[in-house]
Formats: sequence, structure tokens, C-alpha cells
Amino acid sequence: MKRLAILGSTGSIGQSTLSIVEQFPDRYSVASLAAGRNIDEAFAQTVRWRPQIVSLATQELAGQLTTKLKQAGVTGIEVVHGTAGTVACATLPDADFVVSAIVGVSGLEATHAAILAGKPIGLANKECMVAAGEILTRAARERNVPILPIDSEHNAVHQCLRVGEHNEVKFIWLTASGGPFRKLALDQFANITPEQALKHPTWVMGRRITIDSASMLNKGLEVIEACRLFDVTASQVRVTVHPQSTVHSLVEYVDGSILAQISVTDMRLPILYALAYPERPASTLTFDLAALSHLDFEQPDLERFPCLRLAFEAAEKGGAHCIALNAADEIAVEAFLDCRIPFMGIPRTIEKVLAATPESHPATIAEVLAADNEARQTARTLLA
Amino acid sequence: MKRLAILGSTGSIGQSTLSIVEQFPDRYSVASLAAGRNIDEAFAQTVRWRPQIVSLATQELAGQLTTKLKQAGVTGIEVVHGTAGTVACATLPDADFVVSAIVGVSGLEATHAAILAGKPIGLANKECMVAAGEILTRAARERNVPILPIDSEHNAVHQCLRVGEHNEVKFIWLTASGGPFRKLALDQFANITPEQALKHPTWVMGRRITIDSASMLNKGLEVIEACRLFDVTASQVRVTVHPQSTVHSLVEYVDGSILAQISVTDMRLPILYALAYPERPASTLTFDLAALSHLDFEQPDLERFPCLRLAFEAAEKGGAHCIALNAADEIAVEAFLDCRIPFMGIPRTIEKVLAATPESHPATIAEVLAADNEARQTARTLLA
Repeated sequence: MKRLAILGSTGSIGQSTLSIVEQFPDRYSVASLAAGRNIDEAFAQTVRWRPQIVSLATQELAGQLTTKLKQAGVTGIEVVHGTAGTVACATLPDADFVVSAIVGVSGLEATHAAILAGKPIGLANKECMVAAGEILTRAARERNVPILPIDSEHNAVHQCLRVGEHNEVKFIWLTASGGPFRKLALDQFANITPEQALKHPTWVMGRRITIDSASMLNKGLEVIEACRLFDVTASQVRVTVHPQSTVHSLVEYVDGSILAQISVTDMRLPILYALAYPERPASTLTFDLAALSHLDFEQPDLERFPCLRLAFEAAEKGGAHCIALNAADEIAVEAFLDCRIPFMGIPRTIEKVLAATPESHPATIAEVLAADNEARQTARTLLA
Repeated sequence: MKRLAILGSTGSIGQSTLSIVEQFPDRYSVASLAAGRNIDEAFAQTVRWRPQIVSLATQELAGQLTTKLKQAGVTGIEVVHGTAGTVACATLPDADFVVSAIVGVSGLEATHAAILAGKPIGLANKECMVAAGEILTRAARERNVPILPIDSEHNAVHQCLRVGEHNEVKFIWLTASGGPFRKLALDQFANITPEQALKHPTWVMGRRITIDSASMLNKGLEVIEACRLFDVTASQVRVTVHPQSTVHSLVEYVDGSILAQISVTDMRLPILYALAYPERPASTLTFDLAALSHLDFEQPDLERFPCLRLAFEAAEKGGAHCIALNAADEIAVEAFLDCRIPFMGIPRTIEKVLAATPESHPATIAEVLAADNEARQTARTLLA
């Protein structure tokens, strides 16, 4: 029985994780749940899963949950809050495995704390690896803590990497759907509206990640994540556009063999993989290979998708440049969604913030957060 | 340094193996060479590679080679002949690895002898596994002898099987090019000529295997081979038609993940894989993934390709039925190439021979050869 700490339990990955726990009651149980502001869902999950400890974003929300639990006659559950609360969930002695799916600062500190506590990690928080990948992977290596990627591309890479040694890897090929503007002419990019950019062809996701998919910045973040997770250089990571999102990624070995992973586009599959690794429990998440007719591939166009080029440049430099890329993009995407800048203003903002960022490699989480703040401030100033 | 016994050294696989030895002189050397009737090539290979022992098909050819070597001043090489000679090559104490690429009886006996002698096998001889797979794999398991498949499909499967456990495999998906008649209407199959059937769209191969590709009997033999090599039932093996021959095969796991192997269509790659396993030496056999535009897949049509259906039926029954399938096909293909029967006469002949074959599981190589002879006799009688 693996007892899970689920950080970000009311989000999409958290809910999918709980649906896996539901399907495999003999394999998994819930040790702790860290939620944000969705108190109704957090209450329902707590009643259903009876974790030892639950965390919410603020003291006020924690108080409300305590009251609700008392009213429902549910006792013996510790309710905590804030980043310290999330860290307490992540480092709970009885937790055997931590699902890290909180976006932002709380997620980063708690994931770091979990690694320091020797907990295996299922990582769905891309920003963690982009902003603090150098710190997290060093800590994980020193403690021999496995980090199992939960997003579909890196999960595919993790699978494909099992057929060879690290020094036998030539390229990691991340597939990209290409987003809604894959076929849009360059001169039309100036007119892209938030409504258009929020329509993703294959995945249903949050607002920022959907815009990041449309600009391919998201794929750029995944390039950086791949460098950190799999300890390869930016020049060893390549991107191929694959509109069907059927092949989730590939690994090319030095002997000439390329391994690819194919599956349904359902996050429960990489979650199950991460939870069960190295085992593969039988699931109903079946891809109908007999119905497959064709798979298309094309090269990404860095002129129409400058965010991808910028991400490769940041991946090459590492450290503060990766932090700045992510931070500047978040601010720029907000501005785009508020109709304050055009779509191509996103890469322009990022490029300027990157140019203003000195090369450095933050060595602590506090330094990472400081660099992140500084890049956000630079971006805000630029956009004001 | 791995010292190789190469059985079938003057054939296509044998020559490709020697080109790998040439490319990796620090990894591989030649311990023994078993050739057939191509004395000029056998002489050139012996002079170039200086094996301890060389075998030819007959005593007369062996005598000729001895004379030629003496005239060339090449001494200290033992020249042997026939099945006993091939067995001597395969079981040479100094050989560390046996490449089994002789079609037919000699190949079968020598491969069996090599397994009994504990030699790891690189297997390119499909018939071995089809006719005597039950015997060979049992012997290999008992002695913990690895059998590394050299044909591209099973080599791909071998690679894809490294990311999971045996009991986690749901299906093995063999890809098939579909051959030259993939799009031919059923009513045109009666008019297929040997010349048309000998034109294979992607691979250049021998005459029988080319016809077998056109009838998809070859894929059927591979289904049987997959059952034996990977210890799965016929119902766990599926075939998907993939005209580009870029994905060499796939493995579907019970959790829903499908792993696929992609590479150039060059036999040197699976040979190198088998020789080097579990390592992957860097090679120049690069597949240009950036140039990949699309991959097509379709379901095989068992009405137009009854040979595939017959092979699945034989795979299910195992033993004598697999032997009869292979033997009857060889006789029927000869008859087709001699214009004595039409193309669809091949499956008709096989079906009749299978119907006349009682279910049995030969336990020795002698019993296998007897069953093989009997099936050939039945086929010849039917065609007379």
C-alpha cells in the first residue's frame, strides 16, 4: 500500500490522482491533501479520503474547513494552511509518495522539502523544474530520490529511456500538438485574440498553459524540464510537431534506434505510471491501435513561434534565464488575456526580460524566488 | 572482445554482420564462418577474417577451399563441411556469440547445438523458431541462454519489451509493409505473376521471402516466431499494416502505454543491437526524424491475405502445424515461381496440408525434421 501526499488535490491532476486511488484501493491510500481555495472540494475530498492532514491556502479557509468537518462529525484530521501547511503535507512521515501538482511558490518549497525528506516525487508541476530544476535534481540525486514526471511528454521520455543507458541517448524528441495556430500565416499572428488562443485542439487545460501551448512557450518550458529531469543539454532536446498528440515523445539512441511512446491523451495514464513505477497495473486507458490510420509530423517554425527559440536559449544558459523565461511569460500572458498586449507581445516581453537578466545560477530556493520576483518586476515595468 | 561464429556468412545477414565487425574492430572478431556453396566469397572472407574454422556445404567444396587457401599461403585454418561442419562452427569453444543466419536444416541443428553449448544466439533464421521454437526456447530457458532476434520486427519488439515485465504485456503488434498487393482488388489476385510478386516495396530480400511478403505468409511466420521468442499466445500477437516500414513493431502494455521502435530499414541496425546487447554502440545508421512527415497504418485484410489467417491458426495449435505451414509454403512458393500454380494456390495448398496434419508437438530436432519432410511430401503430392 502506497500512502500518497497529494499537493494540489483539488486541481485537475489532483482529482485525476484521486480517481486512480479510487480505481486501485489495494495499491494506494491518501495520507495528506494540500488544496488551495476550493473549500467545497477540499471538504468533500477530506470526508471521502480521510487523510491525516489537510492544508488550505489561508488560515481563514483552514478555520472554515475545521468547522465544516466538525459539523459533519469528521474528527481526527489536522487542518493546516499556507506554504508551511503544504510543506507539512509533503513531508508527513506516513507519506510514501508525493504527487506535486501545485503551481507556483508553495509547490516549489513543498516539493523541495519532500525531496529533502527522501520522498519519491510524481512531478506535475512544470515550473518547479524550470525555475529550480538544478537545485531539485541535485538534491534528488544526492538522496537517491526518484522524480517521476507526470506530464505526458516527460512521462513518455521516462518510459523510452528505460531501453538504454544515459550515455547512449542522442536526442530527446518532445512532441508538440502545434496548438491552434500551427497553420496560421505569420502575418495573421498580430490579430490573434485571447478567445482564439484559448481554444486548444487536443488538451483541455488551464488558461495560462493553454496560451503557452498556442505560443509554444509551453513546449519551451518542457525543453528546460527535460534538460533538468534527464540531465541532458539543450542541444540534445528537439521538438517535433505532431498534431494528433498520439506519440507523446521519443528518445533517439546513438545506435540509431528511436523509441516512441503512444497512448490515449488522458492524464490518468502518466499519473498511474508515476505512482506504480516500475510496475504497470492493468488499466482501462486503452489506445485503439487497430483504429489508428496515420500520424503526422512537421518541424516547428521558430519564426512564427519565437517563444520556443527563446526557451532553447534560456535552457542553454540555465539558472536565472530559465526562471526569467517562466516569470516573464506569466506576466505577459496575463497582459495578453487582459488585452493589454498583442499575442506577439508575449515573446517580445520575454526577450526583453531575458536580455535584462544577468547569467547566474541560484543555489537555494530563496534565491530562486528572488530571481523570479525580479524577473516579474522587470516584466511589469516593461508592460506598464 | 566478442568472438563471433557466423552461420550463413556469405548470405545477406552474414555479410552485414561482417560489415559490423569491420566497423567495430575493438568489439568483435570472427571465430568461425559457416558458408554454403559460394566458395569465392567464403575464400575472400576466410583470407580477410582468419577464422579458426570454416565450413562449406559439401566435402568437395571444402577440398577446393583448402586448396585455394594453401595456394594463397593461408595456413592454420580448419576447413569442414556439411551439417556436422556447421555444428562445429556453432559450438567452437572460442566462440562467444553465434549469429544464426542459415536457412533450413543445417541452421536448425547448428542453432540447437549452440544453445546446448550455452552460446548466446543472434537469430536471423526465422524457420528455426517457426519449426522448432518450442524446443529451442525451452533449451535456451533451461540454460539461461539469451536469444536476440535479428529480424527488424522482433528486434523492435525486444527493445520495446525492455520497459515492462512479461506479465504486463497485453499485445505485441508486428508491423507489415503490406507488400506489393496491399491495394490490389481481391478479384485481381488470380492474375498475379511471379514477376509482380517479386517486387517488394521496401526491402530487398531473397526470392522465397519476397513472395512470402507478397502473400503476408512471411508476417504469419513472424507471428509464430513472436509467440515462441517472447512466450506469448497467438491471441497476444497482432499485425498492423504500415507501408513505410518505419515503425518496426510495437508492444502494448496492460496499463495502456504502447512502445514503438523506429529506425532506418537497414539490417545492420538489428544485427548491431543483437551483438552489443545490452549496450548500444554509436553507429551511423541514423533515421532522420526531422524529415519524417507521416506514418500510415491500416488493418490487414485476411480475405485477400489468407496466408496470414492460416499462420494465426497454426500459431494457436503450435508444434506440427507451424512446421507444416512453413514446409507447405516453401513447396507452394516454388510451384508458384515455376508457374505451376497461381498466387492464391499458395494459401490453398497450405490450408490443405494443415488440414492433413495431426496435432502434435515434436520434442526433438529429429522429430521436427521428420514432420517437416512429411508436410513437404504432402504438399508435393497435392501439387503433382
